[in-house]
Amino acid sequence: MSKNVIVGQSGGPTSVINASLAGVYAGARAANLGKVFGMRNGIKGFLERRTIDMGEYIKDEVDLELLKRTPSSFLGSCRYKLPALEENEEVYAQIFEILNEMGVGYFFYIGGNDSMDTIMKLSKYGESKNSPIRFMGVPKTIDNDLAVTDHSPGFGSAAKYIATTIKELILDAQVYNNNAVTVVEVMGRNTGWLAAASALARGDNSMGPDLIYLPELHFDIDKFLDKVAKVSKQSAGHSPTIVVSEGLSLADGRYVNEIAAEKNTVDAFGHKQLSGTASYLSQEIHKNLGVRTRAIEFATIQRSAAHLQSLVDVTEAFAVGQTAVKAAVDGATNRVIIIKRLSSEPYAFATDAMEIEKMANIEKLVPREWINESGDYVTKEYLDYARPLIQGEVAPYFVGGMPRHLVLPK
Amino acid sequence: MSKNVIVGQSGGPTSVINASLAGVYAGARAANLGKVFGMRNGIKGFLERRTIDMGEYIKDEVDLELLKRTPSSFLGSCRYKLPALEENEEVYAQIFEILNEMGVGYFFYIGGNDSMDTIMKLSKYGESKNSPIRFMGVPKTIDNDLAVTDHSPGFGSAAKYIATTIKELILDAQVYNNNAVTVVEVMGRNTGWLAAASALARGDNSMGPDLIYLPELHFDIDKFLDKVAKVSKQSAGHSPTIVVSEGLSLADGRYVNEIAAEKNTVDAFGHKQLSGTASYLSQEIHKNLGVRTRAIEFATIQRSAAHLQSLVDVTEAFAVGQTAVKAAVDGATNRVIIIKRLSSEPYAFATDAMEIEKMANIEKLVPREWINESGDYVTKEYLDYARPLIQGEVAPYFVGGMPRHLVLPK
Repeated sequence: MSKNVIVGQSGGPTSVINASLAGVYAGARAANLGKVFGMRNGIKGFLERRTIDMGEYIKDEVDLELLKRTPSSFLGSCRYKLPALEENEEVYAQIFEILNEMGVGYFFYIGGNDSMDTIMKLSKYGESKNSPIRFMGVPKTIDNDLAVTDHSPGFGSAAKYIATTIKELILDAQVYNNNAVTVVEVMGRNTGWLAAASALARGDNSMGPDLIYLPELHFDIDKFLDKVAKVSKQSAGHSPTIVVSEGLSLADGRYVNEIAAEKNTVDAFGHKQLSGTASYLSQEIHKNLGVRTRAIEFATIQRSAAHLQSLVDVTEAFAVGQTAVKAAVDGATNRVIIIKRLSSEPYAFATDAMEIEKMANIEKLVPREWINESGDYVTKEYLDYARPLIQGEVAPYFVGGMPRHLVLPK
Repeated sequence: MSKNVIVGQSGGPTSVINASLAGVYAGARAANLGKVFGMRNGIKGFLERRTIDMGEYIKDEVDLELLKRTPSSFLGSCRYKLPALEENEEVYAQIFEILNEMGVGYFFYIGGNDSMDTIMKLSKYGESKNSPIRFMGVPKTIDNDLAVTDHSPGFGSAAKYIATTIKELILDAQVYNNNAVTVVEVMGRNTGWLAAASALARGDNSMGPDLIYLPELHFDIDKFLDKVAKVSKQSAGHSPTIVVSEGLSLADGRYVNEIAAEKNTVDAFGHKQLSGTASYLSQEIHKNLGVRTRAIEFATIQRSAAHLQSLVDVTEAFAVGQTAVKAAVDGATNRVIIIKRLSSEPYAFATDAMEIEKMANIEKLVPREWINESGDYVTKEYLDYARPLIQGEVAPYFVGGMPRHLVLPK
């Protein structure tokens, strides 16, 4: 009898992380493998033996399509880094005991850097014990900071949401014919791939954001304020929109939102009032330039807006899941599936199984040459890279006016 | 020769305010009226003779459809309240001079309460001067606070955006199996129609928000914290989502976000650090209950997310524009078009031209009996009222992965 499969999701969700889960499930069915188990809340829940039989929840093709269109992590997630083997061999022994009990031959973990680290450690341990279990990583992250792969599943849909919403917000901001400034904060602690995606709004149908600041370059508040003043006075009645990464930091290494927290003195209870990067910068603009300002944070909406999925992204997220199974069945282990760009125009991609060491614990930054010289916008190279990834739409299945999702009972 | 038409947009935009503009345009074409002029930035821009000939920008049926799908106010907006006649007759004389110069016979103003006030004043003045110009109001507001009409164009799409995004955010919030609390702030200074719409997420496919607080009832922070604690401990690993109106206020009349501003002492420059309602409440929850919290504001996204328009809303917004023209051609003036609900299930509506005095300067609240006894959710009555208004979708025209809009050159 065929070996069973187990699959988990880890780290922050994306709006297509379940498309990869659907891909693993469909791949396992196509390969006639055994049961497909899902870990609740990743490896952490697995250690508590919280698993489900996915076949009980995916009854037909419609369920599979619903799963692709469901944001967040269907199985739940965790932020758990497996301890080093030297520190705690116990955990490893326990994991393999449960895997063997469950008759698992194939282990898939959908996640980012930390998840690849988990796969790496588990396969290494398995190898040392001559375990036949194959361990495969399936990449996901809206941040697009994974190395080796051309881009990460999850990025395209987040980019599509950001560019679309920025385009709408720019129209909204122009409505009063004044010089008010809108500052929009986009996710990205160390990399600016997502903030940069706002530039996709610019075209013959939109002026796009006026300025974009990425964490790849040191942020200088004085230079920033000068630039905003310039853009603001550029034309009467133009209301600039400025996009900033949450992770902007100064030359001295402090994050901009840390300064915000320092400056904000404590309240009556002695608690610091925290303020985000956009909120702080919009206050600075107001104080220094005297214009009205508004701060907007996309918050977790940008990673869960499945109602604006990119078709390319969903297709690729599903494909990396399928390919992971195929590669594992063909004998691969300790690998991660990557996306290779065969051509940008027309866009074409292929998947490949790559040594996981090449991805784990590495952070891919936006190249300096994809950011303009003055450090306040991205270049054509970035746009040519990102534009294919937001193409096409996957319409939600609307029922009674609301998107339908596949959801596990609590 | 047929008289010309002028149309303007005023107040805060909605994602379907341009569908009403398209309705006025289509209505004028159908009635074989003269040119359709648009005021840039409402009556304020009109006084500066900033008008356009809409026919130059709407070349065909595709442009008209694009206009329906374009968020924000195509013509720009203003927040300008016409002075009382006794205060400044000059302005009135000037307006009518320009109108007569332009050969205008029909004047349409798309807006909320203040715009209806403008229409009322202009028709009164016109009547006193025996002007044949007909003045008609076309309602819009995401807030749904207009009297007489069953609901306001703009509300349905904002409600659909809010309910959809809340449904997605609830899935996102559940991902880590902890008791973190998410507080989402929705627009609504004095009325809670929009915050209440988050309840539409609840159904057999979602638990919906745990608690909803509307500005119609006085807010009590201690009771609120007790309730959050209860909901939070209800089940292990449940991460509650709480929706609050921006305009929550205490029994003493202070807005919750004013308290936030008071408590936050000033920064080094002597400026108060402002904090929103959700941000303040999430800090209070964290301090008092010790759980992780996250504050999310939908900000202006909720009124400009045309990528999630409700078909019912777009249809009605277009219809009130068309009907306004038809009624004016039939001789009506000093009227506003309202929506009458003929039936909720199946949903059916009709439009009517109502005396504008019945709408101007009146604010419609969510009825007390549509809010539950404990004041932290809405009842079935509200849901039965709101659900028909989010039905159906109007897909954007996507070009190159981005929604296309009809936009005036700057």
